[in-house]
Amino acid sequence: MVDFKLHVLGCGSALPTTRHFATSQIISLRDKLYMIDCGEGTQIQMRRMRIRFSRLNHIFISHLHGDHCFGLPGLISTFGMLGRRGDLFIHGPKETEDYLQPILSRFCKGLPFEVRFNPIDTYRHALIMEDRSLNVYSIPLKHRLPACGFLFEEKATEAHLIREMADFYQIPVRLLQGIKQGDDYITPEGERIPHARLTRPSEPPKRYAYCSDTSFSPSIVPLIKGVDLLYHEATFSEADAARARETAHSTAAQAAEIARQAAVKKLIIGHFSSRYEDEQLLKLEADKIFPGTILAGEGLVVTV
Amino acid sequence: MVDFKLHVLGCGSALPTTRHFATSQIISLRDKLYMIDCGEGTQIQMRRMRIRFSRLNHIFISHLHGDHCFGLPGLISTFGMLGRRGDLFIHGPKETEDYLQPILSRFCKGLPFEVRFNPIDTYRHALIMEDRSLNVYSIPLKHRLPACGFLFEEKATEAHLIREMADFYQIPVRLLQGIKQGDDYITPEGERIPHARLTRPSEPPKRYAYCSDTSFSPSIVPLIKGVDLLYHEATFSEADAARARETAHSTAAQAAEIARQAAVKKLIIGHFSSRYEDEQLLKLEADKIFPGTILAGEGLVVTV
Repeated sequence: MVDFKLHVLGCGSALPTTRHFATSQIISLRDKLYMIDCGEGTQIQMRRMRIRFSRLNHIFISHLHGDHCFGLPGLISTFGMLGRRGDLFIHGPKETEDYLQPILSRFCKGLPFEVRFNPIDTYRHALIMEDRSLNVYSIPLKHRLPACGFLFEEKATEAHLIREMADFYQIPVRLLQGIKQGDDYITPEGERIPHARLTRPSEPPKRYAYCSDTSFSPSIVPLIKGVDLLYHEATFSEADAARARETAHSTAAQAAEIARQAAVKKLIIGHFSSRYEDEQLLKLEADKIFPGTILAGEGLVVTV
Repeated sequence: MVDFKLHVLGCGSALPTTRHFATSQIISLRDKLYMIDCGEGTQIQMRRMRIRFSRLNHIFISHLHGDHCFGLPGLISTFGMLGRRGDLFIHGPKETEDYLQPILSRFCKGLPFEVRFNPIDTYRHALIMEDRSLNVYSIPLKHRLPACGFLFEEKATEAHLIREMADFYQIPVRLLQGIKQGDDYITPEGERIPHARLTRPSEPPKRYAYCSDTSFSPSIVPLIKGVDLLYHEATFSEADAARARETAHSTAAQAAEIARQAAVKKLIIGHFSSRYEDEQLLKLEADKIFPGTILAGEGLVVTV
């Protein structure tokens, strides 16, 4: 049973409110955590949600607006005080290092770990990170400065061995791992027992796409086709569509239209403007196009 | 009736907890606000405490540790989005500008107001700011890098005119302002009516001293003698006195000892280490030396 979850730390936009923190999310998959964006207050939200600091090794920054990255200095300082050892990887537009390095040099002298920067070309759809559990791809977005979303694609897990079949054929233990990974079994008599008879298929790999901040951009649809969960920004309501265009943001209906065109399984919307006291209005507008849209909220955990 | 108050936005130390935000305070006096330190999350706390952003023109930074200044970029960005016009003055160690200016250049292009830096010599006790309502002086502290506290000294207000006396002597209206400010009145017959007979004295000017972060430093006692309210850091309990020495912080007992020697009227302690689940322990230790010590807390408002 694989555990691939989205944890929403903050889903407000640039102006702080009493309802929302600035943008940050954590993806948990198996024993690892991955952060997307790190607005002011992110480390405070991690504490509140009791998310373990030590399991986080990768941070993905979508673009260099303050509400997506002003939490990095405090978070990294805290990692230092907690005695973290492993390298911390920060994936983001190439200017991310120019922003952060002088602050680290001034405030975080002698960190017990390395901060490694992976500059992303935000205009390309490309593999930007890979580990045992997943691949992460960039998704070019349209905003007021270089910006990209992220596609988290789980790697296929091994098939489940059918114990009774393994016993029946008396398969040697040393061959079991290969069979789980796709081998057929050849009996001592030379009979080929196909992999599919010996195993049950694993869960299909899941995919999560994060798209914020962006104006309405149907060019991303092929890149996120059929994902299990899409987070798409929905800063404004239809009544403020002109403001969305001016500021290169999306309306709730536009977020839902992207989800519909990409035939995603679930849509969650966020990055709410501070002007809405109640975001149910945004959900209603999205639901008309993509029924069952989920409203993001601080502390919300969604299974991918 | 003058309104001189301390509003505690955050009173934790460097590591975030679910109980405390990093250091920040607001002083309100008459129609103006003054901020002391600006840790991460300060603007969020201002929203929660419903403190008006527009009335704040001066920010005082005690030293350049992240938990005292990582909230500045977000706060200044927000001021920009809210369309603030008046100059914003930042008083702090001279490195404050080196830290902040590159961030403002990158993230806050075209601010509709000026950010003006006033570099402070943290090793001197000197007047660093003066306006119609108060004088602010630096208080040299002993920490791991240049650090100073701040003494807020209210200016004397005018005496209150005794209306019946003014009527009795039929004092011309054009002379009333001068009398409130100290003039005697000379009647048409040449009789001198002393100021003290025509007025009731105003409230004596109040003083507030902020001392954080610092190791035990009796050299500050003459500078804060008899203040109405002293905020002194009390990061550690007696059991952790060695840790206080190593990190150039104070224990609760040391904070109380400074308050006792300076014969201050009220003491409030804060900058609590994350290791204490319950700061009542720190209050008990302080109370033995300075009875009635106040524990800081987020949202607390204390009259100076």
